[in-house]
Formats: sequence, structure tokens, C-alpha cells
Amino acid sequence: MNHAANAVDTQCINTIRTLAMDAVQKANSGHPGTPMGLAPVGYTLWSRVLRYHPEHPDWPNRDRFVLSVGHASMLLYSLLHLAGVVEIDAHGKRSGQPAISLDDIKQFRQMSSKTPGHPEYRMTTGVETTTGPLGQGCANSVGMAMAERWLAKRFNRDDQVLFDYNVYTLCGDGDMMEGISSEAASIAGHLKLENLCWIYDNNTISIEGHTELAFSEDVIKRFQAYGWHTLHVTDANNLLALSDALSTFQKNTGAPTLIVVDSVIGYGSPHKHNTASAHGEPLGEEEIRLTKAAYGWPEDSSFLVPDEARTVLRDALLKRSKPLYEQWTETLSHLEQYEPELADELRRMRAGEMPEHWQEQLPSFNADAKGVASRAAGGEVLNAFAKQIPWLLGGSADLSPSTKTNLTFDDAGRFSAENYGGRNLHFGIREHAMGAIANGMALSYLRPYTSTFLVFSDYMKPPIRLAAIMELPVVFVFTHDSIGVGEDGPTHQPIEHLTQLRATPGLLTLRPGDANETLEAWKIALAQTHRPTCVVLSRQNLPTLDRTKYAAATGTSRGAYVLAGADKPQVILMATGSEVSLAVEAYEQLKTEGVAAQVVSMPSWELFEEQDQAYRDSVLPPAVKARLVVEQAGPLGWDRYVGQTGAKVVMNSFGASAPLSKLQAKFGFTLDNVVKLAKEQVRLNS
Amino acid sequence: MNHAANAVDTQCINTIRTLAMDAVQKANSGHPGTPMGLAPVGYTLWSRVLRYHPEHPDWPNRDRFVLSVGHASMLLYSLLHLAGVVEIDAHGKRSGQPAISLDDIKQFRQMSSKTPGHPEYRMTTGVETTTGPLGQGCANSVGMAMAERWLAKRFNRDDQVLFDYNVYTLCGDGDMMEGISSEAASIAGHLKLENLCWIYDNNTISIEGHTELAFSEDVIKRFQAYGWHTLHVTDANNLLALSDALSTFQKNTGAPTLIVVDSVIGYGSPHKHNTASAHGEPLGEEEIRLTKAAYGWPEDSSFLVPDEARTVLRDALLKRSKPLYEQWTETLSHLEQYEPELADELRRMRAGEMPEHWQEQLPSFNADAKGVASRAAGGEVLNAFAKQIPWLLGGSADLSPSTKTNLTFDDAGRFSAENYGGRNLHFGIREHAMGAIANGMALSYLRPYTSTFLVFSDYMKPPIRLAAIMELPVVFVFTHDSIGVGEDGPTHQPIEHLTQLRATPGLLTLRPGDANETLEAWKIALAQTHRPTCVVLSRQNLPTLDRTKYAAATGTSRGAYVLAGADKPQVILMATGSEVSLAVEAYEQLKTEGVAAQVVSMPSWELFEEQDQAYRDSVLPPAVKARLVVEQAGPLGWDRYVGQTGAKVVMNSFGASAPLSKLQAKFGFTLDNVVKLAKEQVRLNS
Repeated sequence: MNHAANAVDTQCINTIRTLAMDAVQKANSGHPGTPMGLAPVGYTLWSRVLRYHPEHPDWPNRDRFVLSVGHASMLLYSLLHLAGVVEIDAHGKRSGQPAISLDDIKQFRQMSSKTPGHPEYRMTTGVETTTGPLGQGCANSVGMAMAERWLAKRFNRDDQVLFDYNVYTLCGDGDMMEGISSEAASIAGHLKLENLCWIYDNNTISIEGHTELAFSEDVIKRFQAYGWHTLHVTDANNLLALSDALSTFQKNTGAPTLIVVDSVIGYGSPHKHNTASAHGEPLGEEEIRLTKAAYGWPEDSSFLVPDEARTVLRDALLKRSKPLYEQWTETLSHLEQYEPELADELRRMRAGEMPEHWQEQLPSFNADAKGVASRAAGGEVLNAFAKQIPWLLGGSADLSPSTKTNLTFDDAGRFSAENYGGRNLHFGIREHAMGAIANGMALSYLRPYTSTFLVFSDYMKPPIRLAAIMELPVVFVFTHDSIGVGEDGPTHQPIEHLTQLRATPGLLTLRPGDANETLEAWKIALAQTHRPTCVVLSRQNLPTLDRTKYAAATGTSRGAYVLAGADKPQVILMATGSEVSLAVEAYEQLKTEGVAAQVVSMPSWELFEEQDQAYRDSVLPPAVKARLVVEQAGPLGWDRYVGQTGAKVVMNSFGASAPLSKLQAKFGFTLDNVVKLAKEQVRLNS
Repeated sequence: MNHAANAVDTQCINTIRTLAMDAVQKANSGHPGTPMGLAPVGYTLWSRVLRYHPEHPDWPNRDRFVLSVGHASMLLYSLLHLAGVVEIDAHGKRSGQPAISLDDIKQFRQMSSKTPGHPEYRMTTGVETTTGPLGQGCANSVGMAMAERWLAKRFNRDDQVLFDYNVYTLCGDGDMMEGISSEAASIAGHLKLENLCWIYDNNTISIEGHTELAFSEDVIKRFQAYGWHTLHVTDANNLLALSDALSTFQKNTGAPTLIVVDSVIGYGSPHKHNTASAHGEPLGEEEIRLTKAAYGWPEDSSFLVPDEARTVLRDALLKRSKPLYEQWTETLSHLEQYEPELADELRRMRAGEMPEHWQEQLPSFNADAKGVASRAAGGEVLNAFAKQIPWLLGGSADLSPSTKTNLTFDDAGRFSAENYGGRNLHFGIREHAMGAIANGMALSYLRPYTSTFLVFSDYMKPPIRLAAIMELPVVFVFTHDSIGVGEDGPTHQPIEHLTQLRATPGLLTLRPGDANETLEAWKIALAQTHRPTCVVLSRQNLPTLDRTKYAAATGTSRGAYVLAGADKPQVILMATGSEVSLAVEAYEQLKTEGVAAQVVSMPSWELFEEQDQAYRDSVLPPAVKARLVVEQAGPLGWDRYVGQTGAKVVMNSFGASAPLSKLQAKFGFTLDNVVKLAKEQVRLNS
């Protein structure tokens, strides 16, 4: 059947296929067709090419295998099982268990199993990234390949090579059609990532039927246009051709490689091969019997792993990778001996630790009525941290002059095909890929940040969500955070975006109110080890508050704090970001009128909710019902804090194109209006 | 200077350039560089090619001019001014004013002006679509071109041609880099849209600097891979070459055309041409003087429109388009005479009216404990409406077998290059382009719907937002709307998405609770004329409630209604979608235990908020503080309805991969838990 596939190869390939069929059938849910079609590809890659030590799946220089077709999770689970990969627990320790046992496979798609429907990072050893939403794995893999280039530049010394891993990505039709992968492929070609190999499963079947319904482009030519090497294997069952193509990739230089593999979805199934119905549902008991018969497999078997298949993959991996791994540990020892500081850096990166002095030499900002835009303060703060944290790197989707995220110190450099050691990344106008590339870098020991305007967080929501699901400490900087954008108008003025970010589980959102809160926000973001952070900053200048007169900005770490105010306030004024200074102004005005107000700066709802009840009640005393929030964003969610009788100075519509001061007047963000509503609250509640 | 540009051409082109410079300078904000570079392109297209009657900018068969580079809005405003386009007001009436006067140009980027920072549909006559977020205009234009193909198929009769317009789109580097335009270009090639011409402004400058920082692909080759015709004009000032290229486009068949035009951003500015600083800020008074001098323009002039330039564009348009327009009105009269029903259909489409009998022959659903998934009911309802509304058409991003949105009746057909009259659209796995294409179709008299899983609304948020900004009545169907997705796990289980949609201004979100509410939801969605609607549906079966026992589903139109309950309830149970039946079950159980509960079905927050206070108080009596919400989604925003003491059975984290029943148990969506919490509410509040 298989060219150059011997009996053992065939047996192992059919083991992968039948495990997928059986697991999906038992779960009565899942995707058998792609694992059946791609089993020879996975097998060839893992048995003949991948540098991966099954006893050290956390080896930093392992080749990465990214299953961008996440629905084909059973392919990955079978490979991890047959490779004998050992489990590393959440604390980086060996549990003594296999990453995936046969019992785990039988628990496919069941509660708390290690074999969920789509591969989940942190849940299963050997899963390099969470995949399922199409295109994300592709873009993650570009981030991993960029990370390798950077790591190699930083840690390799002539013949002392610590990093030279390759990244292999299995992609499907969805990956080819989704815009994010087009963005990622374009930048991968631009950056000449010769360590990146995408394998495109050209099975011509998608959920609605034959791909010719919607997809007739020349994929190879498109990737050539991106500057990629391209190869075509016309039969997924031809192991020799697959091996040859993968060898060619390894020899290719100066560009990433796309290997198009023509495969048959549901391969071997007499009635369902090459049909959409093989994609996302169990084959059925009878069809499984017929398919097993077609493979020459025991028809009545279930979850059968023949003895020959049990060891072949593991043996092949060990034979190839054990010497490489041992060489690598020697190289690391060499580094530890001769460049202990650099070795310690790598240790910290692997452990997710910051450098010892990362919070030193930070700027502070003196009281200043004119003040500074929080994006500008943010840029200064970022640069200070980046000087202390060599593996903090990032950039913008072509907006760094506006987001102020450029690293400007001498040796920061620009990351490019000519200088992979640079730390300023130019993502181009590709927000979606930017987010997913950052995720891929965070999965590779680096601390990445991205930046664009807040309104364009819409373009990158899927990777923000995945960063939260994967618990990756990426920092997403969003500037131009309100109608403060001014003349660019409604398309550029975020309204619902803060709500969207706050609504996303596992995500930390910080909207600091002045330069000193911005410093705190960055500090909090960088201190995260298991949570992505959005740092939301203003376009316009914000007064730097006098912290000798008002409370210290360190209150930021508690999410909300009393910035100014009386012990027994008559009214609470809540605000975030650019509206904090307006609230303070109103407070001062109210004081002159004999009204005792309290200003609560509330940069982060999530952090505030984590505080104990006593603290929360001290910030928002339950007895004080007179409450007002001022925020240049949509109202959703504020009822929780202002209560059902409180007032909201918020955006109840899209914005408009006009100078900021006119917008403030139109939408009520004026001292007069805030003072008026505050007094009304006092009256209503007294 | 300009090849084949005579003195009048040059004068008009320089008028466009200097108006852009002056307007941006006066506003002290905006983007002069692209209008300066592209003025000859806009001028050539409008003066020599575009079929556009300036006195009838609402002529259905006008060529469409889409400025995907929305930041270059001054180019469009100058063209509309010089073309003498007349204003059509919000009611489709002539106001007697020009679309854009010179005074309007002087009000560039000011509050309530007709010249906002980015072109805003409905705010300015002649603006075909709101642009600014990059890539959106490109994908809109694909929808407009698809609409033309469909309209031509439906309304043209042999020599009686009502539709044969072309769509011209000005794109920039951002459009080339954004994934959405890759998706849109791929499907445009697939559909062989020979009426579509994208003009790519290859000025090699983006905000961070030279495009070579991030963009080195071969754009022409990429578009050839998509199946496009490609042309290259190496000098934007060569009017002859531009005209030739546009003529070639008009002769091209079987594929869309890309014209790459090499231009110079900030053309003519001695110090700022070909620099990023020409992109997004005023040139400065001195540089403007120098630039005007370079053009041979009066240096001290301001907003100068020479007499020769005042009429040339308008005359050229009238000469070419007036006879075409008159021919067209004759053709329409012919249709009115010989096929009055079809003519009436076109009239209704233009007016945004539904067919007379659009609400007849609808299904109704009998009480059924087993019930039906709301996606399945939705499919049945959609088909019933589609039979009555010939211009209701749509499809899915490769998920129609799951979203159940296929039109299955005999003559529905599939929209393809071979059958542009089909009504089932296959967007491929391209959610982002799907949304923007639907917007383009809605801008072209059609009533489009899209569909995918709710979690993938993340992939298409930007066009959803733009539909809301533009007030387009697109229907976005989202199925698999909760952890009801089950085994596919967290990547496929929406949590924050309902919140996101509810937070977006101008958007209507409906999550119906059973088949009959689904019917009402579709009815409401199709009755919208100025608002997009998200119809959010379940994967799993939902009991069809017995409406003889509980209130009628027509309550859906008020957003929330009392489905069941006592006059003086002790506790209010709120629910939406798949949780409504659980709330009803809990209500019945509580009744047997002597607790008087009230069930509020709440399919739409937006519609509920539009009701008067009396109605709202009747549904949620303020005196009843014992409240509970059950919704398989994130908690944000529910405080408004449950108050600060109410309980929420909601999702406070991501989901998990497991069968639905296990997920319901894990996350508390069980009868026991709801009853327990309801009783706790009664106890706490009594």
C-alpha cells in the first residue's frame, strides 16, 4: 500500500488511524477523517524527522509540532501515546505517568481527561499550543520560529549551539482560507524563516462539501508570492516522497517551506472516504468494521495497539534525539560554566521568572497639570523595563509611532531577516497574526508585547482569547482608548471594547489614569506568569496627579482604590483612565461647594474583584448609594458598581468625528455635567 | 508633468491635492499624503471611466467607487465636490444642496459636518460605504460586485439591461496586508467577478516607515494565484497608462482585475514626499507653500478651486453618464410596463421594504418536550421567509450543515460563477470577509444573512461593528451558542460573546428560548431597516414550550416578557435561550414546593430597554428583590437586572470538553441548583 512503507510502518500508521476511529466512536463525537488521512504524514514526520526526546518533552531545543488542524486532535494524541512521551506536570515535574495512556485515549472528549476535543496547552504534555480556531496554530508557529531565531542569536556561540529547532505545522483547508494565516505566511516569508515548515493537508473536502465550492486559488503560487519554498507530495501514503520533501525542507535556506500533501479524508473507509461526513462525526460501528477490514486490521478489535507498533515510534525518536539531547545538555553545562549569567537568564526564561533587578531604575512622574499621554508614559516605562528584561520584546501592527511602543535604547535593534536578535518587531498591518505570533513567542520562553489602537482589538480578539485560555502572560497594549481619538471619528473610537476585554475570562485589563498608574499597570502586567494583560492607554495628555495630595498609584495593584476623599463621603465618583482627572476636578469643585465626595480610581475590575470583601467595602462603602461613574466607554457592566440608582457618564452610542473638546461637551464629559450629576445623586440619596 | 494630462487635467488634479492639504491643515488633523499621491488616479477614474450621474447619485446602476483607504477621505470629498454631486437626504429626497460644498470641505473633521475624518455612509451622499478600518472596503466591494451579478441575473432581460455596474476600489498597503482582504480576494477570484477592479496604491510607505520593514511579498503574483487579472502602472501621474489599464479592466472577462499603481505619497511636497510623516499629519504652513509652488499653484491661495477645474469633472461625468442614465430609466419603465411585479420588487428593494406577504405561510411549532435545536427551527423559519422574500440570501463560512442555514427549496440554488442567481452563498472558511461581504450586499439592496458558530463571531467582529455604524439590516446568525457545544471544548464554547454583542451600540442581539421564539426572532430581524441583528441559536435540542400554558412567544418583540408565573412572585427567574426551559422546569418544581416564582424569558436586552418604564416594571417588579438569572454565558451586565443581591447561574470561566450533561452538572445548570438558589433568594429577601 505505502511506497517505502514496510510492514511495521504500515502497522503503526493503521494503529493511529484505528485509534482515531475507535476513540471518536466511543466518544460518539469528534473528527476521524483527518487523522485517518494524515496518519502517514504524522508518522513519517515523527519517526523519521522530528528531533524530540520522548522523555524530555520540555527540552527547549525540541522541534515543535503544531497541529493547526486542532480538530484532528486524535492524530496528536495517538502520536504522543505511541512515542511514549512522559508527562510533565503543571510545576514542571515528572509525574511518572505517560503523557497519554491508552486509557486516556479511551477517555477522549470526557470531563477532565487529558484528551479533550481539541488539544489544550497545559492540559496535555506534548501539546505545544491550543488549537481549534482555524489559522491560529499557523500563526503561533510563525511566532515559535521567530522565537527560535531570536534564541539562537542570543544563546548560540559558534560551535556551541543551544537553539536550532524547526517548527512543523499541520494545516488544513481552513488554515489556507482564514485571513490570519495569510498574514502570518506573508510575514514569515518576509522574515525568511527557514526553520518553519507548513504541511498543508490538501484533502479537498471541507464541511460544506468539496473545497471547489469556495476555494480554487493556486496555493503553491500564492506561497511562492510570499517568498516561500514550495513542494508538492501527491500521495499522503507515499512515505518516501514525504521523507524526501521533509529532507528538502531541512536543506532549504533563506525562506520557510510549504509542503502541499494531497490526502484522502477518511482514508480507507469504503463509504465515507473523500466525503464531508468523514470530517466531523463518528464513522459508525459498521463502517469502522469495513474500514478495519480494508486496512487488513482485526475487524472486531477495539483500541488495538499491536506490539510492533508500540515501540517503533519511540525507538526511532530515541535513536535520533537522545544523542542530540545529550549533546545539548553538555552545551548547556558549558554555558553554565563559562557564561553563568547568560545561563541563569535561560533558566529564568524557562521558569517564567523575571531578572532579579527588573523593578529597578524605573521612572517616576512628578505632578504636572499639563501631564502626558498615558501612551507616552507607557513608552517610557516599557523602555525602562525592557532594559532590565532582555527577553521582553515586541512591536506594533504598523502603529508604533502612535502607540509609542518602540524600544529606543541603543542595542534594542529591529528584528529582521538580517538581525534576528532585534527586539523591535514590525508586524505590518496584520493585527490578527500579531496576536497569534505573540502567543507563539510566549510559548517559547519570551515575554512578548503587541500594540495597536484599542478599536482594532476587534481584529485580534481570537488570539487574545487563546492567550487567556492558554494562560500566557502576553502584554497587549491598546492606545487611543476612547473618543479621545477625536477627529478620526466613530470607526476609530472604541466604545464596547473595554467591555469585551473585561468580559473575557482569564484576561486582565488595566486602564491607568495617569503616568504613575501606567507604571504600575506595566509592573502588574509583567509580574503575571499565567495571565495575559491588556494595558489600555490614552492618545491625549492626562494630568499627572499630585500623589502627595492624593493616594499613591500603587493602589492600582488592588484594581480600585480611594484616590481622594472624605471619610464619610456623600457621593462616590468612580472613573478609569482619562476620566480619573475629570473626577478629581469634580471632587475639588464639589469640596468648594461643601459636598463631600470620594474619588475611586478603578483601573482594573478583575483585580478589584480579587480583593476581599472588607477591602472592596472600604473602597465602595455599601451605605453610600450616591454613586457616579465617568468612563468614555459603553455602560455595560457598571451597574455592578454604581448600583441601580447610580448615574453613568458613559458612551451610549458610537462617537463622532470632531476635536476632542467638542466631543467631551457633546457626550457630557465636562466638569459641569459631572458636578451636576454628582449633586443630583446626593440629593436623590439623602 | 503628467503624460497625456492636459492643462485642465493637471489643474483639476492639483485642485484635489491642494484641497486635501488645506483641509487637513485647517483641521490640524488628517491624512494629506495619500490624496496627494492618488489625485491623478481618482481624477482619471472619475473623469474618464466612472459611470456616475452626479444628479442621480442613487442611480442603482451607477458604478461604485469604494475608498478602502478611508483615511484618504479628502480625496473622495474633493471628487464629490468637483463632480457636483447633489445631496440626497436620509429619506431619499433631494435636499437642493450639493453633497459636498466648498464650505463643507472647510469643515473637514468638525462636529456634524458632512466631511468627517473617515467617510461615513448615510452622513455624506456619494459615500458608498463607511471605511477606515483597513481591509473592510475591499471586502465590501466584493459584496457589491456579487450583488451586481445577482441583480443582473434577476432583473436583466436580453437587451433590457438594468444592472451592469462595475465596482472600483482604492486600496493601500494596509488592505494588502490585512487578512480580510486576502480572504475577500480569494473568493472574488473563485467567483470570477469580472466587474470588480481593485486599484492598489503601491506607495511603499506605511506608518512605521518603508513597507520593506514588514512587506516584501509579490502582490501581483499573489493575485494571479487567486485567479485575478493583474496590471501594473508604474507612474500614478501617467494618465494615459491609468486610462489604458482601466480600459483593459473593462474588457477583461472571467476574473476580477488588480491594477497596481506605483505612486508617491505626499507627491510634490519637497520635504515630505515619500515619507511616513506625509501620511497622517498636516504638512505645515511652510511646506504647503513650497508644495503649491512646486505644483505651480498660487502659494498664498487657500481652498482654491480654479474656474477650469470647477466644471471639468462634472462635465465629463454628465457627458458619459447622462445618456446611460436616461437609457436606464427607459429600461426601468419597460420593466414597469411589462413585468410590473418584478419592477415592484426592485422598488421595494430600493426602499428597504419587504414584500407584501412576507409574514405569511410561516411555520408554527407545537408543544414538544423533546423539542428541537433552535438552529434547526431557525433553518425552517429562514426557509419560510426566504420563499417569500426573493432577495433574502446568504450562507455560511463552511458550516451550513451545522448552522442549518441552507435554503433547501427548489429554486434557491447555489451562488457560483456558473449561477449568479443562486441564493446559497459558500463563503469558505472566511468569517471576516463573510461579514464585510454581507455589508456590501446590504449596501446594494439585498437582504443578506451570514452564519457561523457564536465563538467565531470573534473572527468577524469588525464588520459586525461596521454594520451597526452604517445601520445596515444584515442578519448575523450564530449557532452553537454556549457550552452546549459540549465535547469540542473551550475553544469552541462561547462565554463572553453575548456580552460583546450586547455591548456594541446599534446592534440587536436575540437569543430565543425555543422554536416559537426563534420564529419571532427572525421576524424581528427581518423587520429591521436600520439595524443589524444577531440571531443566537443553540446546537442542542430545546423543548418547545406549551404556549397554551405559558405566555405567547410574541413577547419576544418586547425583549423580555413574563413567560410564566404568579401575580405576586416571591422570586423572579430570568433566562435566555437554552436556559429558558430550565427556568420553566424550576418554576414548576418551586410551585410544587409552594414557592411562587415568575419566569422571565429575556431574548433581547436591547428591545427590553426600549420599552417604557411601566412595561419594564411589570416584567421585573422593582419590589421583588429575589432574583436569579440562568444563562450559559459570562456574567457581565446581568447586575442591571438581578440587582446587587440577586444570584447568577452563569459561566465564570471558560468551559471544558465533555458531554453537555456533564458540563451542565459541573457548571451548575441543573434543576437542583437553580431551585436551591431560587429558594435561597426567597429566604434572603423575605
